[in-house]
Amino acid sequence: MSDQDNKEISETFLELAKNEFKIESIDKEVEQFKIRKMESAYNERDTLIEKIPSFWKIVLSQHLDFANYIRASDFKYIDAIEKITVKYASDIEKIGSFSITFHFNEIKDDLPEQIITKKFKLVKIGPKQRSDEEGEDDNTKETELDDIESDERLISEVCDIEWPKEYNSINPDLIEDKKSPEGKKNYRQGMKSFFGWFRWTGLKPGKEFPHGDSLATLLSEDLYPYCVKYYTEAQRDFADEDSYSDDTSEEGIDLSEEEQDNDEEPAKKKIHTS
Amino acid sequence: MSDQDNKEISETFLELAKNEFKIESIDKEVEQFKIRKMESAYNERDTLIEKIPSFWKIVLSQHLDFANYIRASDFKYIDAIEKITVKYASDIEKIGSFSITFHFNEIKDDLPEQIITKKFKLVKIGPKQRSDEEGEDDNTKETELDDIESDERLISEVCDIEWPKEYNSINPDLIEDKKSPEGKKNYRQGMKSFFGWFRWTGLKPGKEFPHGDSLATLLSEDLYPYCVKYYTEAQRDFADEDSYSDDTSEEGIDLSEEEQDNDEEPAKKKIHTS
Repeated sequence: MSDQDNKEISETFLELAKNEFKIESIDKEVEQFKIRKMESAYNERDTLIEKIPSFWKIVLSQHLDFANYIRASDFKYIDAIEKITVKYASDIEKIGSFSITFHFNEIKDDLPEQIITKKFKLVKIGPKQRSDEEGEDDNTKETELDDIESDERLISEVCDIEWPKEYNSINPDLIEDKKSPEGKKNYRQGMKSFFGWFRWTGLKPGKEFPHGDSLATLLSEDLYPYCVKYYTEAQRDFADEDSYSDDTSEEGIDLSEEEQDNDEEPAKKKIHTS
Repeated sequence: MSDQDNKEISETFLELAKNEFKIESIDKEVEQFKIRKMESAYNERDTLIEKIPSFWKIVLSQHLDFANYIRASDFKYIDAIEKITVKYASDIEKIGSFSITFHFNEIKDDLPEQIITKKFKLVKIGPKQRSDEEGEDDNTKETELDDIESDERLISEVCDIEWPKEYNSINPDLIEDKKSPEGKKNYRQGMKSFFGWFRWTGLKPGKEFPHGDSLATLLSEDLYPYCVKYYTEAQRDFADEDSYSDDTSEEGIDLSEEEQDNDEEPAKKKIHTS
């Protein structure tokens, strides 16, 4: 390439960087527009959901991805969650930050009723910082475009929550000697529990609840916005199970035959299941 | 549950259904706001990208998910794509519909230069229709909530595109006897090629390009909006490869040692890679 070509490409990269900033700022504006528009609809929905028994229990147990973050022994406490609400920051410079509030029901002799809010803040990691972290060398041409692809990450604060009595041995506030092998092991166990997630800050990677930011995002971007969809799916699954067991037990219909009868477009199933 | 309780829950479900409609309509409004805001920034970007050699070739070969839709033998023709643009419908009743335009470079004696636009339309599948398709029975209580979770699907029209000469044997327009075993086999092969995707309609599942709608969505919701991000990542990867090969060949640095030196926070890597 000639020097002239190189110069032109450098200029194009610079223009493209400016354009990406523009797109990023439109994204924030769109997000703000959405948060403001949705607020009253979400508030209304929160009130309606409160009237439906076990709504959140059904949603949280239905969601496969959520289960990946939760140890089997924690589900007892997940079932005690009566209500979840998410509030999204709508100031343009705070877009991406949010707080999640959990209402826990009492579990007798184990967990008190409590309302806990955990706050998450979206912060920028500048290219300088990222480059330091990754131990990269400066690299002249790419850096111009690299600069604009600023990464962002969620951070949080340690959040006071009462742990279940059953978890006394792994409750970090009750571990006397955190340096002993036994203490270390219990501390790590505790950090991996759902209650450990409330201590997640994002500032001590490897020593905290694993992927605490992804769990927060799952709640704020998927579980809360689409909770009614997940609830409906769960109800549909229950209904399917009911009708299957009705079919087989009461009427004794052979399901394989029934499926063939309805199967006018045999190939369609392939698409759905693959 | 008492009749009174049942009645109250039914009413709540009805209210929730109305609320979901409200949320759905806000979603469309937000999407419209975004499309209108983004239009000029995207147009500006299209013009800038044209000045960067092999931009789309680099983006398309970088993207792992895209590769899942493309047979290895098709990549020669993917590399011939000089430009991709996506136009999003912004009328409120057409939100979710879009068109994708591909500019193919000529491949001598094989593929002519051509500009092809494929249009996609988002259509609703009403609960009635869905229920027919899935062969479900009516189910009284759930149906109320079910009604609101209307599914949507993409459809398209067969789109004229000149196939490469190399593909003559699997080009559906050139297969003389589509009913012969050989003809059937070739037809299926053709439908699975990237050129087969241009014939995808969404109306003959199992007989068309597999997951043609997902490929369309990948282009419209991921590859086009984030193309600069993917381009930058690809450039960063190239730079990394270069610096690694420099390190080993010219200076003979042991990479494993170098990594240990920089590894102030050993646990961080875990988070990144897992």
